Amino acid sequence: MPRLFRKKSSKSGLPPGTPIYIGDRHPKKTRIMVIKYDEDQLIEKEVSTVEECLQGKESSVVTWIKIVGLQQVNLLEKVGESFNLHPLVIEDILNTTQRSKIEDYGDYLFIVVKNVDYKEDEIESNQISIILGPSFIISFQEYQEAIFEPIMDRMRNKRGILRRMRNDYLAYALLDAVLDNYFVVMEKLSDKIEVLEDELIIDPTQKTLHEIHRLKQNLIILRKSIWPFREVVSRIERSRYSLIDEKILIYIRDIYDHSIQVMETVETYRDMLSGMLDIYLSSVSNRMNEVMKVLTIIATIFIPLTLIAGIYGMNFRFMPELEIPFAYPLVWLSMLVVGLVLVGFFRRKRWI
Amino acid sequence: MPRLFRKKSSKSGLPPGTPIYIGDRHPKKTRIMVIKYDEDQLIEKEVSTVEECLQGKESSVVTWIKIVGLQQVNLLEKVGESFNLHPLVIEDILNTTQRSKIEDYGDYLFIVVKNVDYKEDEIESNQISIILGPSFIISFQEYQEAIFEPIMDRMRNKRGILRRMRNDYLAYALLDAVLDNYFVVMEKLSDKIEVLEDELIIDPTQKTLHEIHRLKQNLIILRKSIWPFREVVSRIERSRYSLIDEKILIYIRDIYDHSIQVMETVETYRDMLSGMLDIYLSSVSNRMNEVMKVLTIIATIFIPLTLIAGIYGMNFRFMPELEIPFAYPLVWLSMLVVGLVLVGFFRRKRWI
Amino acid sequence: MPRLFRKKSSKSGLPPGTPIYIGDRHPKKTRIMVIKYDEDQLIEKEVSTVEECLQGKESSVVTWIKIVGLQQVNLLEKVGESFNLHPLVIEDILNTTQRSKIEDYGDYLFIVVKNVDYKEDEIESNQISIILGPSFIISFQEYQEAIFEPIMDRMRNKRGILRRMRNDYLAYALLDAVLDNYFVVMEKLSDKIEVLEDELIIDPTQKTLHEIHRLKQNLIILRKSIWPFREVVSRIERSRYSLIDEKILIYIRDIYDHSIQVMETVETYRDMLSGMLDIYLSSVSNRMNEVMKVLTIIATIFIPLTLIAGIYGMNFRFMPELEIPFAYPLVWLSMLVVGLVLVGFFRRKRWI
Amino acid sequence: MPRLFRKKSSKSGLPPGTPIYIGDRHPKKTRIMVIKYDEDQLIEKEVSTVEECLQGKESSVVTWIKIVGLQQVNLLEKVGESFNLHPLVIEDILNTTQRSKIEDYGDYLFIVVKNVDYKEDEIESNQISIILGPSFIISFQEYQEAIFEPIMDRMRNKRGILRRMRNDYLAYALLDAVLDNYFVVMEKLSDKIEVLEDELIIDPTQKTLHEIHRLKQNLIILRKSIWPFREVVSRIERSRYSLIDEKILIYIRDIYDHSIQVMETVETYRDMLSGMLDIYLSSVSNRMNEVMKVLTIIATIFIPLTLIAGIYGMNFRFMPELEIPFAYPLVWLSMLVVGLVLVGFFRRKRWI
Amino acid sequence: MPRLFRKKSSKSGLPPGTPIYIGDRHPKKTRIMVIKYDEDQLIEKEVSTVEECLQGKESSVVTWIKIVGLQQVNLLEKVGESFNLHPLVIEDILNTTQRSKIEDYGDYLFIVVKNVDYKEDEIESNQISIILGPSFIISFQEYQEAIFEPIMDRMRNKRGILRRMRNDYLAYALLDAVLDNYFVVMEKLSDKIEVLEDELIIDPTQKTLHEIHRLKQNLIILRKSIWPFREVVSRIERSRYSLIDEKILIYIRDIYDHSIQVMETVETYRDMLSGMLDIYLSSVSNRMNEVMKVLTIIATIFIPLTLIAGIYGMNFRFMPELEIPFAYPLVWLSMLVVGLVLVGFFRRKRWI
Repeated sequence: MPRLFRKKSSKSGLPPGTPIYIGDRHPKKTRIMVIKYDEDQLIEKEVSTVEECLQGKESSVVTWIKIVGLQQVNLLEKVGESFNLHPLVIEDILNTTQRSKIEDYGDYLFIVVKNVDYKEDEIESNQISIILGPSFIISFQEYQEAIFEPIMDRMRNKRGILRRMRNDYLAYALLDAVLDNYFVVMEKLSDKIEVLEDELIIDPTQKTLHEIHRLKQNLIILRKSIWPFREVVSRIERSRYSLIDEKILIYIRDIYDHSIQVMETVETYRDMLSGMLDIYLSSVSNRMNEVMKVLTIIATIFIPLTLIAGIYGMNFRFMPELEIPFAYPLVWLSMLVVGLVLVGFFRRKRWI
Repeated sequence: MPRLFRKKSSKSGLPPGTPIYIGDRHPKKTRIMVIKYDEDQLIEKEVSTVEECLQGKESSVVTWIKIVGLQQVNLLEKVGESFNLHPLVIEDILNTTQRSKIEDYGDYLFIVVKNVDYKEDEIESNQISIILGPSFIISFQEYQEAIFEPIMDRMRNKRGILRRMRNDYLAYALLDAVLDNYFVVMEKLSDKIEVLEDELIIDPTQKTLHEIHRLKQNLIILRKSIWPFREVVSRIERSRYSLIDEKILIYIRDIYDHSIQVMETVETYRDMLSGMLDIYLSSVSNRMNEVMKVLTIIATIFIPLTLIAGIYGMNFRFMPELEIPFAYPLVWLSMLVVGLVLVGFFRRKRWI
Repeated sequence: MPRLFRKKSSKSGLPPGTPIYIGDRHPKKTRIMVIKYDEDQLIEKEVSTVEECLQGKESSVVTWIKIVGLQQVNLLEKVGESFNLHPLVIEDILNTTQRSKIEDYGDYLFIVVKNVDYKEDEIESNQISIILGPSFIISFQEYQEAIFEPIMDRMRNKRGILRRMRNDYLAYALLDAVLDNYFVVMEKLSDKIEVLEDELIIDPTQKTLHEIHRLKQNLIILRKSIWPFREVVSRIERSRYSLIDEKILIYIRDIYDHSIQVMETVETYRDMLSGMLDIYLSSVSNRMNEVMKVLTIIATIFIPLTLIAGIYGMNFRFMPELEIPFAYPLVWLSMLVVGLVLVGFFRRKRWI
Repeated sequence: MPRLFRKKSSKSGLPPGTPIYIGDRHPKKTRIMVIKYDEDQLIEKEVSTVEECLQGKESSVVTWIKIVGLQQVNLLEKVGESFNLHPLVIEDILNTTQRSKIEDYGDYLFIVVKNVDYKEDEIESNQISIILGPSFIISFQEYQEAIFEPIMDRMRNKRGILRRMRNDYLAYALLDAVLDNYFVVMEKLSDKIEVLEDELIIDPTQKTLHEIHRLKQNLIILRKSIWPFREVVSRIERSRYSLIDEKILIYIRDIYDHSIQVMETVETYRDMLSGMLDIYLSSVSNRMNEVMKVLTIIATIFIPLTLIAGIYGMNFRFMPELEIPFAYPLVWLSMLVVGLVLVGFFRRKRWI
Repeated sequence: MPRLFRKKSSKSGLPPGTPIYIGDRHPKKTRIMVIKYDEDQLIEKEVSTVEECLQGKESSVVTWIKIVGLQQVNLLEKVGESFNLHPLVIEDILNTTQRSKIEDYGDYLFIVVKNVDYKEDEIESNQISIILGPSFIISFQEYQEAIFEPIMDRMRNKRGILRRMRNDYLAYALLDAVLDNYFVVMEKLSDKIEVLEDELIIDPTQKTLHEIHRLKQNLIILRKSIWPFREVVSRIERSRYSLIDEKILIYIRDIYDHSIQVMETVETYRDMLSGMLDIYLSSVSNRMNEVMKVLTIIATIFIPLTLIAGIYGMNFRFMPELEIPFAYPLVWLSMLVVGLVLVGFFRRKRWI
């Protein structure tokens, strides 16, 4: 079973706002990439101190500070202080058990969403936090640097729309990239379900059952991620935050529609898997029925015949039948008749 | 299982708004029909370039551009540019995995709905997109040219209401034609369910089970199509778009009522099929009970008799009964008595 | 199974508003009764032409035009034209698969509700349509003239409240009469459920199962009728239509309360029947358990004894026991002991 | 099963507002108690005519007219006329199948709630109707005079809060007394559930199943009573009726909280009973499994041994083994070996 | 089963507002701690009379009166009087069966929440009541003094945020401490579920079933506690009480998010446990299938062979086969063939 609930109790008793990293502590160190861009230029560099990030706080170019790895808590705290982030924000970024949400802190928007991945039949979810300021974006992720690579590629294209737009469009692009991963996961699940559906009709086994179970548990987890994601997007659409330009809303509506589509598909798959489980269960019952019929047919035919044989195996002195010359073949005959009558009975009951 | 989820991952990483056709790529080429009409005239022609479509952009006659087949992406992009459509609209038209929706782009309304078809016990759904402008309508569909044929027939009738009304009524007529197909599908399902209900009472088989399962899965898919359809219609009714005249709303309310009716019937059928599944399962249990009773009756009657026969088949030297002349018929008699007592026992238990 | 879905596909392709009767085409011809009343007078007559209906369109007396049988489409169309009804209204009156609804057309209210009847263990529902104008009511029904007979009786009582009130009160009385039939059906179902509940505890059979199933399916259908009925009544209460006087609303609230009561009772019965199905299923399991225990007890006691008998039936030359004089009674004794030990074992397991 | 649905059909056809008593017609006659109180005095007397009630209609003292028994319809009608009650109110008071509700008639509030009682494992519900006027309260109940006795006791206490407050506080006290009975019933059910839970783990029987079933049905009925009760209280809190002083609302909020608590507990118990039913069902399956294992073990061990014995019981002339002196003990040995091997097999399968 | 419903009926009949302690009457006596703090000072002392509490009612320092143990009803009543609390408030504090809630009494807020604990596989819930006045907080708890110890530790830290903030922040800190216990319980449940999930796949036993059942019942209880907790927090966030400063709301929103997370996790766990129950049930069925197959295979192979042996054990005088020298080995051979044919049959049926 995928881990549903990462330990948070180590924190209990500490004052709220204490920054402690709660997660699977991937061994990589924290890396900070700074990307600055406008229509004319694009500067990408990796920095090692927080001060280097701050150089680009002026508003004409967009600055994207991309932070991968949340182990170096001090570094992240310094980022928080430099950008005047509320202590609860830094705490939430580090606590990767967070539920997806969006919060308006006036100067900046704080967005947390869950990215998903499907590895070895398990759904893994990791947390992406986004700070959207007036001209900058800071993104925090635990690992998996590659998920924003397609965005970098598009940014390198000088005439791409990304370069012409500002950081609110970039925030949309990040959310869209995360949502795309849900589609990838859904497709993999969809393939699995189709395979299982065929297996179920042709030859359901105990393994089929466990696969259905595992898919159901995975869908429960997926659902737990996509519902709050949809809420976040819906709130962006409705709240008309000043930091997000109105012409971006049409794009937000687009991912809103897609997140609803994922949600509905999750529900549809759950319904389908429930249906498949019912079918599995009745297949098991049906097969048991088959087994019982075979036993009953055999026992019903042979036990009476065995009794006949047993009777003429008795050692009574006076058993006149034993002396009759044709008695033996007659017994054979009567056994045959009894057997055929019983077979006929089962035919009529449609068991054979 | 019907394909729930068409591959969309081939797109992941591409910038939003990139027009790529996602669908079952039917081999036909894209055809463009242009229909112009008002009360006095009706012109139908097939065109091969986008420019020919544009000739009729003046507002006194209604222009319906009917596009069938979405393979020629360039052509569709050109249509989009000519009519000033947002890139996301063209992307959504091509991505036939879209959820039904309506979007107001100011100059035009963009409507996506799912048309359904029931072939070989599977529900197929394909996407119809409609652009409703000030005096024109553009409809996009993947295949199945025939679904709008009845509308064409009515349009050819000079005194029909269609000719007297403008393009908002035509939009209504298109939606109504799509909804009619849901009714056709529901009727076919209804027939199936009635047949199954009878089968269930008289002689349920494994096939009955699989049919119930298949119908349930089909209803899940149908439900996934009709819910957003209803939302689209409801939004038209409530939003009072400037492009749709108020006197059309009474017609919209009519299809709204019908879409609710389809929805409710889908839910009713699901409830009924669930009930039928329960009955199937208890029929299986009941039949197993029958089988077990036969086995138990036979075994309970004959096993003790076999023991009696076995006892008098033993070879002990000193078995006084063996010498008694009437012992053999007495054994027969006692067997009969034991057998009858057991039969009586089963009678009292109401097993026979 | 009751027919859920009457054929509507015959209509598909026809323009909306085309009046076609969709129903079970009862062979009676359409009858038109005209009732005119105020506090002083009451005139009842059957008319054969639409023109005769129109004579009483003045406002001082209330005119109730009661139309039974929807086969003569032309006649109904003429009624529609005479009273200036929208073509969609006439279409909806004829299409008896309609969902219950109320629509305000300014000059008149159009109300559709479903009347129910319980015959031969099936719920039949038929459609009642009501046009409420300024001083007239037109009611349309498929058959079953008798359902409004009690209203006629009360109307003939000169001092009854009906004669003192206007046509909005009459509309209420018609709805109340329809709702009364729901109560009658609920009572019949309630009786059935009580009988089944007893059967279930005492001696559940396959028939009990099918009865539960049938009741569940009937409740699904009943629920599909009462929900929209409640919506209609609720909308009357909330919308404060100008055609319905405010002092009528207290009566409307009364039928609203009753329709909620029917709805809740339907849900309660469904829950109860689900509970009964669970009990049925576990009764079947329990009985199978009983059967298996009998088999197991018999087999476990007699099979070992049969082995003992078999052993001493072997023909080995050197079997010293066979020569011992008391061996035979000893074998009997040992069989008795084995049997009793096994019986004791089953006692301890609480199987006997 | 408790009676869900008292006959109302006897009324169908009568005009609304016709006062007919629908209930279990307890044989007692209708009694009328009049209680008048303010801080200084308390007068209790039983009256026999309606006129005597009316003497205290002045506003300085509070008058509580407590009517027990609804058989004397004429008397109640007279009460209705004297206090100017709407005919529908009197009808609703007499029709004890009413759903709980509150209605504002301007001069007075009309409240109907259901009182519950738990007798012989069945929930009985009876109807309490309350008319709250400017300075009086009329309460109607079918029987069970005792339920308001605690209120009378408190009223006799001169310094109690009841004496200092007016009739709106009395209305609250009546509702609170009714709600207290729900708590009493819930406790009894809670005790039952705890007993059943233990039974279920230790030794579930058919009786356990029927008890679970009965509790579930009782909870369904309880739920049907408490939901509308909660609605009534919630409406009092929200509607700010002029007849109920604002300082009473804090008390109303208190019973609102308690009614929610009852509702939630009902739902919790239903969930728990569903869980218990699942456990019961799997216990039955598990026990069947045990039974089958015993049968299979016995049959699998003894049937092959019986075959061996049977083989050496054959009467072929040339069976060399029969002549070997140690053959007989060898057969015993081989039987032992076969038996032990099979026992070992079942051990490994963990069946023994 | 955890006690769901503590006796409240002992109270029925008493006037509302009567202070009676309803709970498990832990034997400790009531202890009162008074903590006064501002940025400069922190005074902790235990007092024995209510008068000592009152000394610090001035507004410059924050006073936290922490009351543990609710047995001394008189003492608590005196507290109530001293702080002018409404009698219903004191009654609710003592009635520990209360549902979580928040009530605004103008001068003070009254908050009731449930604290949870997981001991010996049972969830225990106890009640925490909080009175938030202008410059003081009174907290009431039944036992378990330790739950607020972490807050005391943080308060002793002079530079902690707690010392800089006022009593509304303290109220938040108390609620946060309670919510932390939910997380602790969830983690323990999560560990249990993971263990069970493994057990389920590898070797499910009756014990597994009872564990799943117990977890489900515990989740039902947990859910009953967290839902109203969430409502309380949500109401604080939305109602903007004057006693809670706006800058505290960001912290309230934080615990709101966390309470939603707990709720969703509870629902997720319930879904998972339902899935696990299904798997358990089909495992039982599958195992029964296995058992039946073994029985059927053994019986089907050996019963016919036993018949053959029985036939040649018959004592007919004229059985020509008996005289044939190779008959005996031929019978062995034929038995082998029959056995192998049947084994082959079961192979093909995939039972072996």
